[in-house]
Amino acid sequence: MQTTQKRQEAETWAQALLDQMTIEEKAGQLAAFFPNGNKRLGIPHMQHGECLHGMVADRATSFPQALALGCMWDPELVEEVASIVAKEARALGVHHCFAPMLGVVRDPRWGRIQEAYGEDTYLVTRTGVAFCKGLQGMGEERLNRDHIIATLKHLVADGEPEAGLNGAAMELSERKLREIHLPPFEACIKEAQAASIMPAHHALNGIPCHANSHLIEDICRQEFGFEGMIVSDNGDIRKLYTTMKVCSSLEESAKLAMDAGVDTELAWLIPWNENRIYGPALIQAVKDGLVSMEQLDTAVRRVLLFKYEMDLLHDPCAKPEQESLEACYQNVEGDAHVSLAGKTVYYGTKRDDVEEVLQNPQHDAIALKAAQKAIVLLKNQNALLPLNVSALQTIAVLGPNSDRVLLGNYATAKPRHYVSVLEGIRRYVGRSVQVLTSQGCDPDTYLAVDIPEAVACARKADVAILVVGGNEITCMENQDVDDLNLKGDQQQLIEAVYETGTPVVMVLLDGRPSSIEWADQHIPAILEGFYLGQECGTALANVLFGEYNPGGKLSVTVPRNVGQIPCYYNKLIPGRAPDYYQSPVKPLYPFGYGLSYTRFSIHDLRVVSCDPTVEEDVQLAVEITNIGARAGEEVVQLYVRDEISSLVRPEKELKGFRRVFLEAGETRTLSFTLKNRDLAFWMDGRWVVEPGEFTVTAGNSSADEQARCTFAVRG
Amino acid sequence: MQTTQKRQEAETWAQALLDQMTIEEKAGQLAAFFPNGNKRLGIPHMQHGECLHGMVADRATSFPQALALGCMWDPELVEEVASIVAKEARALGVHHCFAPMLGVVRDPRWGRIQEAYGEDTYLVTRTGVAFCKGLQGMGEERLNRDHIIATLKHLVADGEPEAGLNGAAMELSERKLREIHLPPFEACIKEAQAASIMPAHHALNGIPCHANSHLIEDICRQEFGFEGMIVSDNGDIRKLYTTMKVCSSLEESAKLAMDAGVDTELAWLIPWNENRIYGPALIQAVKDGLVSMEQLDTAVRRVLLFKYEMDLLHDPCAKPEQESLEACYQNVEGDAHVSLAGKTVYYGTKRDDVEEVLQNPQHDAIALKAAQKAIVLLKNQNALLPLNVSALQTIAVLGPNSDRVLLGNYATAKPRHYVSVLEGIRRYVGRSVQVLTSQGCDPDTYLAVDIPEAVACARKADVAILVVGGNEITCMENQDVDDLNLKGDQQQLIEAVYETGTPVVMVLLDGRPSSIEWADQHIPAILEGFYLGQECGTALANVLFGEYNPGGKLSVTVPRNVGQIPCYYNKLIPGRAPDYYQSPVKPLYPFGYGLSYTRFSIHDLRVVSCDPTVEEDVQLAVEITNIGARAGEEVVQLYVRDEISSLVRPEKELKGFRRVFLEAGETRTLSFTLKNRDLAFWMDGRWVVEPGEFTVTAGNSSADEQARCTFAVRG
Repeated sequence: MQTTQKRQEAETWAQALLDQMTIEEKAGQLAAFFPNGNKRLGIPHMQHGECLHGMVADRATSFPQALALGCMWDPELVEEVASIVAKEARALGVHHCFAPMLGVVRDPRWGRIQEAYGEDTYLVTRTGVAFCKGLQGMGEERLNRDHIIATLKHLVADGEPEAGLNGAAMELSERKLREIHLPPFEACIKEAQAASIMPAHHALNGIPCHANSHLIEDICRQEFGFEGMIVSDNGDIRKLYTTMKVCSSLEESAKLAMDAGVDTELAWLIPWNENRIYGPALIQAVKDGLVSMEQLDTAVRRVLLFKYEMDLLHDPCAKPEQESLEACYQNVEGDAHVSLAGKTVYYGTKRDDVEEVLQNPQHDAIALKAAQKAIVLLKNQNALLPLNVSALQTIAVLGPNSDRVLLGNYATAKPRHYVSVLEGIRRYVGRSVQVLTSQGCDPDTYLAVDIPEAVACARKADVAILVVGGNEITCMENQDVDDLNLKGDQQQLIEAVYETGTPVVMVLLDGRPSSIEWADQHIPAILEGFYLGQECGTALANVLFGEYNPGGKLSVTVPRNVGQIPCYYNKLIPGRAPDYYQSPVKPLYPFGYGLSYTRFSIHDLRVVSCDPTVEEDVQLAVEITNIGARAGEEVVQLYVRDEISSLVRPEKELKGFRRVFLEAGETRTLSFTLKNRDLAFWMDGRWVVEPGEFTVTAGNSSADEQARCTFAVRG
Repeated sequence: MQTTQKRQEAETWAQALLDQMTIEEKAGQLAAFFPNGNKRLGIPHMQHGECLHGMVADRATSFPQALALGCMWDPELVEEVASIVAKEARALGVHHCFAPMLGVVRDPRWGRIQEAYGEDTYLVTRTGVAFCKGLQGMGEERLNRDHIIATLKHLVADGEPEAGLNGAAMELSERKLREIHLPPFEACIKEAQAASIMPAHHALNGIPCHANSHLIEDICRQEFGFEGMIVSDNGDIRKLYTTMKVCSSLEESAKLAMDAGVDTELAWLIPWNENRIYGPALIQAVKDGLVSMEQLDTAVRRVLLFKYEMDLLHDPCAKPEQESLEACYQNVEGDAHVSLAGKTVYYGTKRDDVEEVLQNPQHDAIALKAAQKAIVLLKNQNALLPLNVSALQTIAVLGPNSDRVLLGNYATAKPRHYVSVLEGIRRYVGRSVQVLTSQGCDPDTYLAVDIPEAVACARKADVAILVVGGNEITCMENQDVDDLNLKGDQQQLIEAVYETGTPVVMVLLDGRPSSIEWADQHIPAILEGFYLGQECGTALANVLFGEYNPGGKLSVTVPRNVGQIPCYYNKLIPGRAPDYYQSPVKPLYPFGYGLSYTRFSIHDLRVVSCDPTVEEDVQLAVEITNIGARAGEEVVQLYVRDEISSLVRPEKELKGFRRVFLEAGETRTLSFTLKNRDLAFWMDGRWVVEPGEFTVTAGNSSADEQARCTFAVRG
């Protein structure tokens, strides 16, 4: 946090500039991902960027995709990842990025599910706060030369778009808004002092999020204490008029967004003279009196204060020389471009030490650590895994995803390196084991190319590692799916390889969970990776051969089929027992699920202290014992149920978790704290803790209740 | 409506009884579908029943299922149907039935979709009001000896259960509640003076509908002017405690329901001494002071007033002799039982003229008329239909649904007669044409039994009529589906019959739409019937052979697959263009769609009069011409769009329709009236008509805009 003195200096500086600026110059400050310095007045440029799971810039470190980061259930490591991302961002000359994504995702049809941390509010909150702290830094380090501004997105409730379609209008109860979708934003604001927020594409209960002053001003600023900048999503201010029809002109679009409190505009590839809304339209709106000068100044002041706080006046990457607004998206040379949607855009200036920062071996080490932690073991019949490399003569590494770069959306187009599964396995086994390989299906379309070749490889091998799933085409922003089966002919490939009788380990790499009911019934071992970043193959090889004992847990429920959607663990209690004709209502794999090569017992959950008026926190403790023969990690998950409530509640809600490493035979005691808010629900416009009994269960997934205890709250 | 004098008499009578009744006797009045007369005090019994699409009683007339009634787009005929239902009900000794179902249905996974009139609020409203008027009678006829009490159900928003699961907790925006789900209830209360309402199984925004005083008291009674009785759904008062956990005892369940305004309890097969909630639990709650005597009296008074208004004191079927409460569900003899869920329950006393009423040939005639009007022609490539019977030598009537009774849920177990498709075709073609038949798949499970036999029949025939779909097992209450494909091996049957090269007409009979994308691409002619009631086969034969020119229109969108759900025409405008990977977002068949054997042109839509302040109605006119060579019926559909609004709105909304018959070459002018409310949307707690331009389109489906006009509203 900045000191009061620095804040006063900043305000004085900003006011002096505001006093001198033309309307056009003011509007120029509001252009995100656009040259926004001012040479005449010496205002530094603030560079924007994307960094969902690593900087979107050539040679940056690529970490596991957000959905996989969620599977780590390890906020400390998430914070470490984000702090590396921030270091690289600043070396690359970037000051403000559009991450983390805080959607609580309940629809795997949505192509952006990969960008989220999971389906549960508590998991998303803990992961999001950690990412935010890592990007921005805390205390003395906040927004210093190794940190950047984080952007919480997308405000709010983007995670359950109707029919899975990106940007679908969202209609929401106040309960769902408050209990499910807003808490990650609240926590990132209150705990991590998040400096920026981006509204969502959709309309929430009829009001476009970019014109929603209730969300932005009343809730985020007044109620949660948000003091940062609101940056629009790409082109969404324009769409208030052109698509959503809530006003009659571009000037009115500018007014609606300004009235709602949207400070800056992201409008990819739209130059000034092509109706950038916070360009000519906003200027006209001010001149016409639709937007007051005070409103404009408020937005500009917010930008200027951050430029001062980040010390951009002394940042070599923030020089005020403004490029020609028309030219800045053209003819960009060099190797640090941002490339999104196939378009190359202005990037900014790299710091002199950029190569030194990027090539820090610690960054690769953390990328590997995260990739390993993110891997979820879904099935391991008869302990097929880990494979004993010394007992193998031939391995078949098969499938369309076995040897291609798979990083997911919002990833660097050119990581420093990428280890495919094939490469990872080859490196691991060295020359002692023969590795046969065949893709079987095309790695872009997943249509069969040579399934017989894959079958032939499998026949010759002691074990087949079959790497299937999806890619950045089958799972992407603005293109969703109406089917969760594996795309193309992959099912045929799986069945053909299975028929050989060679033991098969199936590895899934994709941006979303697939409905793999057949594989679950037939294939003995299954690993889910989503996208694991640049160290993908190394991490998977370490898991396959037992170098690393997997402990990741699903951050989302895996449904049996698309017809079960929405399918998540914490549904409100229904009025009738749910039942599908000839199909279980139970999902294929529950939220929080994941196996290990060892086994754990979670026991003796107990209340350590409980002030029955819950003015104090409730203290709990639980024992965990590694009852297997191998060291490993388990995620102990704590779920709470309010037994009798004035409103119908979920059967259970995650309110605590801890990932722990235990040697074989080791027992540890874990402490958990439930705060008042962990027991509360939203009723009549406020959080309420009702007197009565609460049940707490502890287990290794949302479907596991190995230990249980209760406590009572008095009125 | 009853006169003031009669009302006063009734109140005097009721109060005199209340003054004499014990608590137990009062509670006894609140037992729906249970003996509720009182011999000591001479209070007549009121008999409850089910009549969704005909009385659920042996030998009653069976009309098309509700979803098919919706496909008629003909409220006048719906009213005629309901008036016959009411006549038969009274003759059978029934006074109060649990229909119509007013759910606006947006999820075909739900087994109860068949009970609804469709996906559109306006269509459901017009159909529901007509059904309600038919049951209750209007004016002098209201609740007279030929009419019964209608029950609007289920309050509210049962039509889009999450994941298609019956009773799933519903979370809803105020906009959706007001614009989509409440209007059918409002109209049935205001226009048809509906006398009873049944709350829904689910919790709405956390509050169980059976404990929701805001819905019942504030909205229905205070705002809409509802003056009737609230009757619980089966066992749902008990579930407030046992399932939904919003209270701690059965007595508190009774209190919550009483506080919310639930007057009577439906609790199938639960006798008094087995904890009927409005039995021992309510009595205890009154004795404990949880429920006041005034509350109890209010509920009892409502029941008594209806008993008086319906003149049950002089109804031979309403004699007060109360059967033994323990015995009344046992050993019931005779042929007029109500059988639901395989259980036979107490029925009551038939009137002496019951056979005369049931055997009225007009009832069969209207059943046939309705069945014909409900049939929707989905595809008719190269005018394969109608078939020219004189040009045919052999017809194959194939498929598991070709020769079985298919009436849908809440149908009589024993209609007076039922004409299957096979029987209807045989009767129509007489001896001139040979009819071959084979089911191909089992009519219960739909698994293949003898597809080669069906193929052999098809090979020998000039045309194959292939009757597929579902039945009362695959589509039923409390058992939903996670897949919209045809069940069992029917797809295999269709493809095998198609491969013969014999022209195929596919007929669908089911409780829900199926995803028939393959059939749509290959089969030349397709008819959708849902369930058509007792005259099913006659109606379909008349359509197949051109005796009747079909004009039904889909009351629900037919999605391509289950992954498109929810899939309905009037979605709010999204923030991004919707797109699915390798699959169109467009449904297979849009809402309102249906073909004819002739063609119509809808043209010259115009504003006849428009008071720009819309204090007066907007008058519109449009021309329709039969431009084909055959007489037929078309449903002209009027959709309205508010061009610029403060809230994001749907692209279009149905606000008028008319089903008309035209001779070949005939042109007619149709008039439509838009009321202020038709232009309004719900904002900030009220209906608002905003100034600006409105666009009206007219066409033959929600996807058709043959004619268009605009008008402006001034501020």
